[in-house]
Amino acid sequence: MNQFFYATQIYDEKIILPKDEALHALKVLRKKNGDQIRVVDGKGNLYDAYIDSEDIQDCCLSIKSKCKDYGYQSYYIHIGIVPPKSHDRVELFVEKVVEIGVQEISFINAEHSERNNIKLNRIHKCAVSAMKQSLKAYLPQINDIVSMTDFIKSCGNSEKYIAHLNEDENDLLMQSATIGSDYCILIGPEGDFSLTEINESLQFGFEPVSLGANRLRTETAGIASCHILNLVNEKQ
Amino acid sequence: MNQFFYATQIYDEKIILPKDEALHALKVLRKKNGDQIRVVDGKGNLYDAYIDSEDIQDCCLSIKSKCKDYGYQSYYIHIGIVPPKSHDRVELFVEKVVEIGVQEISFINAEHSERNNIKLNRIHKCAVSAMKQSLKAYLPQINDIVSMTDFIKSCGNSEKYIAHLNEDENDLLMQSATIGSDYCILIGPEGDFSLTEINESLQFGFEPVSLGANRLRTETAGIASCHILNLVNEKQ
Repeated sequence: MNQFFYATQIYDEKIILPKDEALHALKVLRKKNGDQIRVVDGKGNLYDAYIDSEDIQDCCLSIKSKCKDYGYQSYYIHIGIVPPKSHDRVELFVEKVVEIGVQEISFINAEHSERNNIKLNRIHKCAVSAMKQSLKAYLPQINDIVSMTDFIKSCGNSEKYIAHLNEDENDLLMQSATIGSDYCILIGPEGDFSLTEINESLQFGFEPVSLGANRLRTETAGIASCHILNLVNEKQ
Repeated sequence: MNQFFYATQIYDEKIILPKDEALHALKVLRKKNGDQIRVVDGKGNLYDAYIDSEDIQDCCLSIKSKCKDYGYQSYYIHIGIVPPKSHDRVELFVEKVVEIGVQEISFINAEHSERNNIKLNRIHKCAVSAMKQSLKAYLPQINDIVSMTDFIKSCGNSEKYIAHLNEDENDLLMQSATIGSDYCILIGPEGDFSLTEINESLQFGFEPVSLGANRLRTETAGIASCHILNLVNEKQ
């Protein structure tokens, strides 16, 4: 049963599987009435449930047991990223950080942005698929694109970092981040954050950090920062 | 001049740009005779050179200066990976590890392999493109697919690791790896290495390690292991 399904229609004793999930369970995996499957709701709940009806349009499950806070992490990672030009790379970023572990993703419109919109529906699908694939029960909060200024001003995380280029003197994120905290890390576009943006972020408590010696693409920097913050917390 | 070109035909004083690189320099970037560009050979040499002829079929450059061992690293990372089913994911893996920093990539045919061939030409193109993008002068050595047994027996790196699933008790790679060494890390397929394969690798000096608590796809595990070995060496 190394397979998770995703549903949002969950009642006291019943779950209704969405059509695409029902199709996968009934047609691809040939599950039958009475077969048990595992369902997550993206909010930390993992259910063991039996198939009650083999109807793809209305696939109903009976809940057998519920596990709360499945895979709960004591730290919080919020990545604010200026999306790369290619939406495929935006989706790749989302897939990989969900696998590695992230609690919140924000998209930012910066001075050197290469795209000023994101396809939220596609990103949501990516996140759901990566959550199921990596056997997680939490879906990260995903926020629509906002301006850099709005983001900096409203960001309420307790440890705030900004990763920008050409700053080899910055402390390494790996060394700066403390264990078990509530982080936000800002990842800039190909052309980097502007000086104005960097200075503004510093005024609002962001600390400049380096991800290492290598020049990384935006989406790779996003993945690397997420990986570093997870590694910091696995060192214990 | 934050842009590298790649060439292999390099003589004492001249470089011949390959057609696709010449097209990019002359047509896309509209470089003219006398303009200076930077060329890498994938072997650690970085050249400053002037355009001598604006002929795409035969774009000749005069070498102005040469920098040896550009970006040389004192450690060596060799990743042996069982390629995922989708070739796109193989290429994604190659792109990301070249960006992050890798010296050698081997592909392995294992018991639970999902594909038994790789497209070396496409992988080479990916690696070249990622090398230029991340402003590196070294191209990793890329080896064609071999059997797991042959790989294990012939692997000559001094610190050898095998990352496999369901082994939460294994030491973390982050803690096991020593600074400045010559590493090989084996990354298994979706269905993991078989017990026979794991045991055989242990006989040949591979040490089992964990990449962390999260369940990662094959290509993500490859990227994460590469990132960890780079981070270990950037801690200094």
